[in-house]
Amino acid sequence: MSLGEFDLIARYFQRPAGQGPRRAVVGNGDDCAVLAPAPGMQLAVSTDTMVEGRHFLSTVPPERLGHKALAVNLSDLAAAGAQPLGFLLALTLPRVDEAWLAGFARGLLALADEHDCELVGGDTTAGPLAIGVTVLGEVPSGRALLRSGAAVGDDIWVSGHPGEARLALEAFRGTLVPGLSAADFETARLALERPDPRVALGVGLRGLASAAIDVSDGLLGDLGHILAHSGVGADLFLSTLPIAPCLAARSRTEQLDCILAGGDDYELLFTASAAHREAVVQLGAQLGLPLSRIGRVRGQPGRSLFESEGMAPLADRWASFDHFKA
Amino acid sequence: MSLGEFDLIARYFQRPAGQGPRRAVVGNGDDCAVLAPAPGMQLAVSTDTMVEGRHFLSTVPPERLGHKALAVNLSDLAAAGAQPLGFLLALTLPRVDEAWLAGFARGLLALADEHDCELVGGDTTAGPLAIGVTVLGEVPSGRALLRSGAAVGDDIWVSGHPGEARLALEAFRGTLVPGLSAADFETARLALERPDPRVALGVGLRGLASAAIDVSDGLLGDLGHILAHSGVGADLFLSTLPIAPCLAARSRTEQLDCILAGGDDYELLFTASAAHREAVVQLGAQLGLPLSRIGRVRGQPGRSLFESEGMAPLADRWASFDHFKA
Repeated sequence: MSLGEFDLIARYFQRPAGQGPRRAVVGNGDDCAVLAPAPGMQLAVSTDTMVEGRHFLSTVPPERLGHKALAVNLSDLAAAGAQPLGFLLALTLPRVDEAWLAGFARGLLALADEHDCELVGGDTTAGPLAIGVTVLGEVPSGRALLRSGAAVGDDIWVSGHPGEARLALEAFRGTLVPGLSAADFETARLALERPDPRVALGVGLRGLASAAIDVSDGLLGDLGHILAHSGVGADLFLSTLPIAPCLAARSRTEQLDCILAGGDDYELLFTASAAHREAVVQLGAQLGLPLSRIGRVRGQPGRSLFESEGMAPLADRWASFDHFKA
Repeated sequence: MSLGEFDLIARYFQRPAGQGPRRAVVGNGDDCAVLAPAPGMQLAVSTDTMVEGRHFLSTVPPERLGHKALAVNLSDLAAAGAQPLGFLLALTLPRVDEAWLAGFARGLLALADEHDCELVGGDTTAGPLAIGVTVLGEVPSGRALLRSGAAVGDDIWVSGHPGEARLALEAFRGTLVPGLSAADFETARLALERPDPRVALGVGLRGLASAAIDVSDGLLGDLGHILAHSGVGADLFLSTLPIAPCLAARSRTEQLDCILAGGDDYELLFTASAAHREAVVQLGAQLGLPLSRIGRVRGQPGRSLFESEGMAPLADRWASFDHFKA
């Protein structure tokens, strides 16, 4: 890529004066961006790379790709209870495709604006298509949500309708018999390609949640991270799992596979003391976001699945399900 | 790559307790790392990606690759006068090669330790080999070195011996006639593959330098960034350029091509008021780092090259040299 081409690419990510958030003291274009977290705030940082053929297919509209590349990173901030400040974009492109760049930048910057998150720096390289984003956020000192705080007796909650993204993936793979209706496919596909990072929920959970993680690898897999970091176990009650409308017509097996073992949903999975149950319900109502109480933290390590509380434990056929994921 | 392989990779980047710097409040392994810049400090961030075949060949020893991936990012902090705090690593690997990972991690973490810069997070992906690093540093509020502060009459300085890295590149390309001696080749190759980020110099230049940049694209090209950001021009005096010992035996043409148009050296190019001339000289002596005064900032835009001050301007055959770079 020539220097002229780099300039061309940079143009797509520059904002006219007065448009878009301005959080940086020194912005894009110097050796470093300079940011100042507010007094009393700590800085939360995370990075995620999406590689073509691995995280997305070349058929995904570039606008959705731009959205998702930032969304999966904002989701990490959400899981820490951090408010977005800014992000850096490392873009590796096989060629300069202006239509692609325009769409990608549109999707990326629209989500950035929505969360008042400034593009403060980046790097463009020639090579196989890959999109790396590093996000920066701030959280009051000592109040970041961690994976390690779950305590015995805590409720286990999940936001939204996990499983939709996996349903879309299986539809793309052609494994669903019968196939999805066009409307259900579009809903599921939107969840996969245009996930909504739960930033407001994460901020609202400061002081309420004892532990949190975003569901990227699958509900059971990500729950496992909380359990391992917290040194506890969990009982899950399958009858309490939220069923997305686009999953309503599927078999129970497909529903559970998608909800428990699907990933890429970017819902928040969190634990909270039963004393905060009402406050959590109110937070969900305030945000217009369904929050489902799906289980309870226990002292004994591992996890057990029950249809409902008080019933006999079910066979856990997802124990070695993770390897199935590409 | 299976989850097991990810765990394997992560092992190479984890430090035994008590080894390596600890700057993060919440480290690698949660959704976000949490860092707290010291009171009165602003945060400096930068990101750079190195792609195989573009920024390095598969023949580079992995230990040097690990070093360089962090070094080029620390160099951006240096150019801003920022002290390193931590970094995130986004690693895209075609396969799990344990010998490669061990070497890469060794080179990376040795440089990180040298600069008290903690690996606070990251992401590993399967795909064509690419190494993305985002560095975080801190700088006292309002004292970051920028590209935009050069003032008419300021001295123009460069650290070390720019041109060595380009000499190695041309040796690899086989363009040098006669070829390099084995010793000169090794020196030049070390400059290319194992550059020394000028972090201490950058910190020392706070309050002294009016503008700074690191020489990644070539001395003239990077000087152009300072001139454009500052709205000024420059006179350069070629007789004052430092000649690296490994360049001493080359023709004057090769010397100037390497010094003026070579890149990848990661020396600092900076401007400073003549009133600070003695202080700059003392800083160089204190750091044991040659600092050469190679020109002067002028009001008229553009650049002029002179053999020495007061002589007639030379033809500038590097005006369109940039495109030559791969």
